[in-house]
Amino acid sequence: MTNENKSNGKSFYGKRNSKKRYVAYRKTNKKRPPKPPVPKESVRIAFLGGINEIGKNMTLYEYKNDMFIVDCGLAFPSADLPGVDLVIPDFSYVEANADRIKGIVITHGHEDHIGALAYLLKRVNVPVYATKLTIGLIKGKLEEHRLLSSVKLIEVKPKDNITLGSFNVEFIHVNHSIPDAVGLAIRCPAGVIIQTGDFKIDTTPVDGDMIDITRFAEYGKKGVLALLSDSTNAERPGFATSEKNVGDSFVNLFNMAKKKRIVVATFASNIHRIQQIVDVAKSRGRKVAVIGRSLENLVNVGCELGYLNIPEGVLIDIDLIKNYTDDKLVIITTGSQGEPMSALTKIAFDEHKKVSLTPNDFVIISATPIPGNEKMVSNVVNELMKHGVEVIYEKMYDVHVSGHACQEELKLMLGIVKPKYFIPVHGEQKHLQKHANLGIAMGIPKENIYVGNIGERIEISYDGIKPLSNVTAGEVYVDGIGVGDVGNIVLNDRKHLSKDGIIIVVATIDSSTGYTVSGPDIVSRGFVFVKENEALMNSARDLACRVIDESYDKNYRDWNSVKTRLRDEISKLMYEKTKRRPMVLPILMEI
Amino acid sequence: MTNENKSNGKSFYGKRNSKKRYVAYRKTNKKRPPKPPVPKESVRIAFLGGINEIGKNMTLYEYKNDMFIVDCGLAFPSADLPGVDLVIPDFSYVEANADRIKGIVITHGHEDHIGALAYLLKRVNVPVYATKLTIGLIKGKLEEHRLLSSVKLIEVKPKDNITLGSFNVEFIHVNHSIPDAVGLAIRCPAGVIIQTGDFKIDTTPVDGDMIDITRFAEYGKKGVLALLSDSTNAERPGFATSEKNVGDSFVNLFNMAKKKRIVVATFASNIHRIQQIVDVAKSRGRKVAVIGRSLENLVNVGCELGYLNIPEGVLIDIDLIKNYTDDKLVIITTGSQGEPMSALTKIAFDEHKKVSLTPNDFVIISATPIPGNEKMVSNVVNELMKHGVEVIYEKMYDVHVSGHACQEELKLMLGIVKPKYFIPVHGEQKHLQKHANLGIAMGIPKENIYVGNIGERIEISYDGIKPLSNVTAGEVYVDGIGVGDVGNIVLNDRKHLSKDGIIIVVATIDSSTGYTVSGPDIVSRGFVFVKENEALMNSARDLACRVIDESYDKNYRDWNSVKTRLRDEISKLMYEKTKRRPMVLPILMEI
Repeated sequence: MTNENKSNGKSFYGKRNSKKRYVAYRKTNKKRPPKPPVPKESVRIAFLGGINEIGKNMTLYEYKNDMFIVDCGLAFPSADLPGVDLVIPDFSYVEANADRIKGIVITHGHEDHIGALAYLLKRVNVPVYATKLTIGLIKGKLEEHRLLSSVKLIEVKPKDNITLGSFNVEFIHVNHSIPDAVGLAIRCPAGVIIQTGDFKIDTTPVDGDMIDITRFAEYGKKGVLALLSDSTNAERPGFATSEKNVGDSFVNLFNMAKKKRIVVATFASNIHRIQQIVDVAKSRGRKVAVIGRSLENLVNVGCELGYLNIPEGVLIDIDLIKNYTDDKLVIITTGSQGEPMSALTKIAFDEHKKVSLTPNDFVIISATPIPGNEKMVSNVVNELMKHGVEVIYEKMYDVHVSGHACQEELKLMLGIVKPKYFIPVHGEQKHLQKHANLGIAMGIPKENIYVGNIGERIEISYDGIKPLSNVTAGEVYVDGIGVGDVGNIVLNDRKHLSKDGIIIVVATIDSSTGYTVSGPDIVSRGFVFVKENEALMNSARDLACRVIDESYDKNYRDWNSVKTRLRDEISKLMYEKTKRRPMVLPILMEI
Repeated sequence: MTNENKSNGKSFYGKRNSKKRYVAYRKTNKKRPPKPPVPKESVRIAFLGGINEIGKNMTLYEYKNDMFIVDCGLAFPSADLPGVDLVIPDFSYVEANADRIKGIVITHGHEDHIGALAYLLKRVNVPVYATKLTIGLIKGKLEEHRLLSSVKLIEVKPKDNITLGSFNVEFIHVNHSIPDAVGLAIRCPAGVIIQTGDFKIDTTPVDGDMIDITRFAEYGKKGVLALLSDSTNAERPGFATSEKNVGDSFVNLFNMAKKKRIVVATFASNIHRIQQIVDVAKSRGRKVAVIGRSLENLVNVGCELGYLNIPEGVLIDIDLIKNYTDDKLVIITTGSQGEPMSALTKIAFDEHKKVSLTPNDFVIISATPIPGNEKMVSNVVNELMKHGVEVIYEKMYDVHVSGHACQEELKLMLGIVKPKYFIPVHGEQKHLQKHANLGIAMGIPKENIYVGNIGERIEISYDGIKPLSNVTAGEVYVDGIGVGDVGNIVLNDRKHLSKDGIIIVVATIDSSTGYTVSGPDIVSRGFVFVKENEALMNSARDLACRVIDESYDKNYRDWNSVKTRLRDEISKLMYEKTKRRPMVLPILMEI
């Protein structure tokens, strides 16, 4: 770096000269015929997910009466959504405009882009456009929801164009941590919008082709109205490393493992990673067994559609591992995020039926913890180590690379697409703002950068970005088979219950006389260990008796007010005695 | 680096010469009188906390009938301990040996070393030995627990020696993220044990003195039986940076902030950090206001005892900030870990009574997320940014350094103490194992390294380490004022309740006839939004009726078996209809 600066210093006069030349060049260019006038029309974008959050990506485009959707992902619930299985976008706006939706375009097959599709298609059945592998993965989901026969799936390839009403959409090949990912060039009379989808620039990708920079550049040269670009890694400086590097690391690690059995945990969707593990395993004469439902599914789909190339005889059933010595085995497993129900976690905690650990195991965690999962991953690493297992989990071993563009790649994309307006998407506020700053660094005027929010709807033309009134958008919780029947009231109850449990005060009252004929009884769950706290429970019972008797004396017949008093008095007593605030639930039965 | 390697290459012959000299030296030394025979006696160590976990550090030493304790810390509950406020060690073994305990020695004033002291002293009242600041912080805790008058606190200084029965303990100055931290040289007839406490090697510490390497080295030279050393950062290569560097970063960041108001969030206990913020603030003519209970407390204690030097007029009350323009203010706050109830979180979410944000704020998060807190910190950063606030939180700004020794420091400590046995402490399994590997790298034979576990008790002599039978040790949960009354049954109930809520089936039955005289009623909390699920609730009620009636028909009078059937049948129904598993609680009232 220092040398570079010095040489720059030496060529100071040279720089001045080149500046002169540049000015001359600009002057010449001024004489070129004026560019064609920019369109006067406008296009509208509604952000239905993926802005100010990681996950459940969903964008809706509108031109006059035509609409289409890009992606329909889910998000995994955060710790403050107890019992919730999945979070999907609110589809109200889509349902209200069902007859105007021309189709859904999917950029790639990750859960945060396809995971909510089945829920949407149940309500609004429109054609889905995606590449081959993505379609393969969508099919699995639709089958689960028994929708496969009723949905129209249209397979596309990079460079294909489709027409969706007034829109024309071109698919552009990008690199990502799953094959067959595409970015989109969305054309309509208002201009061209580029939506990158999730992408990185991998000059040596495992599956062959580098991202189609040329096509993005061609659009950039012709003029792009707006760029919607992936902000996931906008905080990270530099360039994302090539997936090939992980392959090199595997070679080194397989050497390090010597004659031990190798267990590799990775993201179930990362076909390239699996391919590289298989390749190294094969070269060492090791068999590969796969465990974890999502991984088994991906290997099946990947092999079937030709995205995974596993030579005959390499893959074995997990039940057959006992027939091989440790040095002849590689087990690929889910659980790289320490997920409690995953195969690796079960193995670590001795709860897996088919794999148990010995000090002759060598475990590679080929992933980085997703923010929020650090503790879970740590717990699994500790547990593995307690078995005497050698665990490779640290960054220094290069066992994982990100699938998302880092700052230099994001700048490169901005630099070739040269959009009039820049809208960072796919990220939390901090990612969006960091990405916006990169836009400013690339010379886009601050006022041409739009950091949006979920639910916002904007109108874009070459005259500017105009915010329209918001649309309904947000989180819908899936719990079991219930979609949207768990809301804030239920969640707040769950959180309250989880903190200090529940005390139920139950009594049967003769409504004609007002006498208590049975109870009051005190039942608690999750509050204190009752056997050791009989005195406390007795004092609660005495208090409940007193409250009910007083109500009787005062000739109350308004049971609701008796319940309120019971709740208040018992809560007060419990807080005084224990400094806890259990939920108090009075039930008065009348006969 | 490359140049260094080259020069090493050049002096190859020089190296050979020096090797010859070294061999000669060793030969000479062979003629020295033999070392005095090593002691034959043994000392016992019981690990009561801090091994295979981060937090609640507590070690017990025994020689014949004498015992003493080092540290008595707490741990903060993990996400799988809902409602638990604190976790403290199990004191059973200490209580069973109360009359043999000669005292408690505290290494420094952090919660994970002093936080459980009040709970212990309530049960076993023995003298506490600690340095001045540590005593100051302990006093605050004892006051809260109304123990101050009944506990004997003895102030010590580095280099002081105390006698605890057959033990003699010397305090050795170490660097850490709180002043007045000490390591211990524990002497008894079995030999010398060095327990480092939490430490780092800071050659330019903010409070003056570098760690007393010399004293550790003197013990090393004389012969150390065992070293118990801090493993917190055993995964991190290199050397921990000096706290002074953070001061330099503050100078740069205060420049970057220009005329904005500066808000700095940091650990409440880091007096050095606060001193450095105050120093830079003063040099810029900014006033400093402090918010957050623990921080206010520390500033009071620190100023009172002379550990914080805040010039007259710099510190102002938070209520007075309105009298100053933004460029004249620095606010120091708690909440660097994104803790939900902390001042910074309240500020970020517009819930703080005294501080509200504008785009003219410049927030510095002077801390790194403790594993498990990443998501919370991220949420706060996002929320701050939504106010248009500039937030400095990334590693590249050098706004935080660790207080724990990294690999090179740990190796240095091993190299100067040269223990016969090495016992890594203060860490999870992965930290202990990485630290053990550093020991091996430093030439300690593998069989002389002991990776222990909480509850283990070992006997050490120069003949070896012998495991004794385990002692009672583990986690005791503090919830409100209850200590230990929340156990696994209660916690499992809380977790169950948090996932899918509770359904209560209540009926009043005439025990003479077996008729249901009231109900059955179905009451639920945290399950589904009842108003939208009346049909489900009705079918549950019908089912409960049927179960009770059938029991009546079959002449059941065994209410427990009726309850079991109710629980099973309702659970089954709910799982079929919703794929959820709420807790089902049948209550049958008899009249």
